[in-house]
Amino acid sequence: MFTSLSTRRAVRAILFDTFGTLVDWRSGIVAAIDEFTVSAGLHLDPERIADKWRARYQPSMEPIRTGERDYVTLDVLHDENLRAVLNDSGVHPERFDAELLERLSRAWRRLRPWPDVAGGVDQLRRSYPVGPLSNANTALLIDLSRFAKLSWDVVLGSDVFRSYKPDPKVYRRAATFLGLDPGEVMLVAAHNDDLTGARRAGLATGFVLRANEYGAGQVSDLTATGDWDVIARSVPDLAQWLVR
Amino acid sequence: MFTSLSTRRAVRAILFDTFGTLVDWRSGIVAAIDEFTVSAGLHLDPERIADKWRARYQPSMEPIRTGERDYVTLDVLHDENLRAVLNDSGVHPERFDAELLERLSRAWRRLRPWPDVAGGVDQLRRSYPVGPLSNANTALLIDLSRFAKLSWDVVLGSDVFRSYKPDPKVYRRAATFLGLDPGEVMLVAAHNDDLTGARRAGLATGFVLRANEYGAGQVSDLTATGDWDVIARSVPDLAQWLVR
Repeated sequence: MFTSLSTRRAVRAILFDTFGTLVDWRSGIVAAIDEFTVSAGLHLDPERIADKWRARYQPSMEPIRTGERDYVTLDVLHDENLRAVLNDSGVHPERFDAELLERLSRAWRRLRPWPDVAGGVDQLRRSYPVGPLSNANTALLIDLSRFAKLSWDVVLGSDVFRSYKPDPKVYRRAATFLGLDPGEVMLVAAHNDDLTGARRAGLATGFVLRANEYGAGQVSDLTATGDWDVIARSVPDLAQWLVR
Repeated sequence: MFTSLSTRRAVRAILFDTFGTLVDWRSGIVAAIDEFTVSAGLHLDPERIADKWRARYQPSMEPIRTGERDYVTLDVLHDENLRAVLNDSGVHPERFDAELLERLSRAWRRLRPWPDVAGGVDQLRRSYPVGPLSNANTALLIDLSRFAKLSWDVVLGSDVFRSYKPDPKVYRRAATFLGLDPGEVMLVAAHNDDLTGARRAGLATGFVLRANEYGAGQVSDLTATGDWDVIARSVPDLAQWLVR
C-alpha cells in the first residue's frame, strides 16, 4: 500500500538493506556453524550459536556509530563477535585451525537470497537504479552479491561512510553519492529501526515483511510499526507499486 | 601478451578506467555538441569544441589532486570546463536556457561503449569481480553504466576517494575496498599515464588499445609505453589472457 502518491512520483533510486531483507542469513549461518562443529569435533547447537552471534551484531556497531571506536569493517566485527560467542560457550577459538575459523567467520559471504529477490530486483532495475546500502563492507557485499547472483547499479558498503546505519549521515551521504535529494531515494528494509533511521534522514521508506528471518520463533518486525511509504509482502509486491 | 605468469595468478579482481577505455566519449560528445549548437542556433565546430572541452579535463583535476582545491565532482568540473570553452569561443553560456546547457554538460552520461566491451566484461565477470575505477563521480557512473547496459560487482567513483587518478591513494584505497592487496587488483586502461599511476601504487596493469579515442588524428596512447602485465587489442583479447 502506498500512503503517498507524491512520494511514489518522487522516488528515483532504490537502495536495499541486505542481511534479512535480501538474503536469509540465519539458514546460511546455521549451516556454516553446523559444518564448523562437525569439522572441529564439537557439540554445539548451531541455531543457538547463530542467534548469539547475530545478537552481538547491533551492540558491536554502536561504539563506532557514537565515535567512541574508529571504524572497523563488518568482517572484523563478525570475527570478534564469533570469538566472543565461542568463548562464552566454553570453546576457545585459539584451539582451532585459523583457516577453519576464518571460513566460518566469512560465512556471511555465502548466504542465499530469499526466493522472491532476484525477480523483484530485476523488475525494479528496469525503471530505477538499484543497489545495496548495507552495514556490510564493500568486499563482503561483492562476494555476497556474486554468490547470490545479484547485479547492481551501485554498491554502498559501510566502509564508504566509515559508519553504520542507522547513523543518519550514512543515509544522507548515500543520497549525495546518487546525486539525488534524500526524498528521491527509497530505502527498502525488513527492519523498522532501519526505516526509522532512513525517514529521519529524509529518505522514502519501503517495508518488506520477512517473517522467518529469525526462524520460527521470530517476535520482531512481524508488522510495519511505522506508516512507511510502501508496505509489501515481497520485493515483487514492492515492485508492483513502484514500477509504472 | 603476459609478461609475468605470477602476476596472472595473483589477480583476483579487475577494475576499468571508463572514458576512452570502456566508452567512446568523443563521438557521443561531438553528437551532443552538434545537437546543442542546432538548438541554440550557433555555428560552432562540434569536433573542435569536444577536443577543447576534453583538453581541460586533466588540468581541472590537478588542483584537487594536489589539495589546493577541495574535492568537487566531475559533473562540476565538466560544467565549469564547458562554460570556459564556450566563453573562449565567444559564446556566452549565460545567454542560453540553463536546461539546454545542463543537458550538454551531462552528455557524459550518454556515451556508447566500444563494441567489444559488453562481451569482454561479461567474460571476465564469470571469473573475477569487475567494476569501474573512474574519475567520474558515482552518480555519473550509475547513469553511464545504465545507458551503456553494463553491469558491475562494484562501482568506485572519484567521490568515494575525494580525489582523482593518478593520485596514488585512489588506487590503493580501491584495493582496500575490495579487501585485496594492491597486487591482486588489475587496472585496465587505454591510457599509459593511468597505468603508470596504478603500477606505482602496486596494482597489476592491463593496457587496451583504443586507437580512435581521440578521432582520426590521435597521436597519444597508440602503443603501450610500459611493460604492462597484459597488453591487449580489446577487452575480449584481455579476457583471453585472464580467464583460465
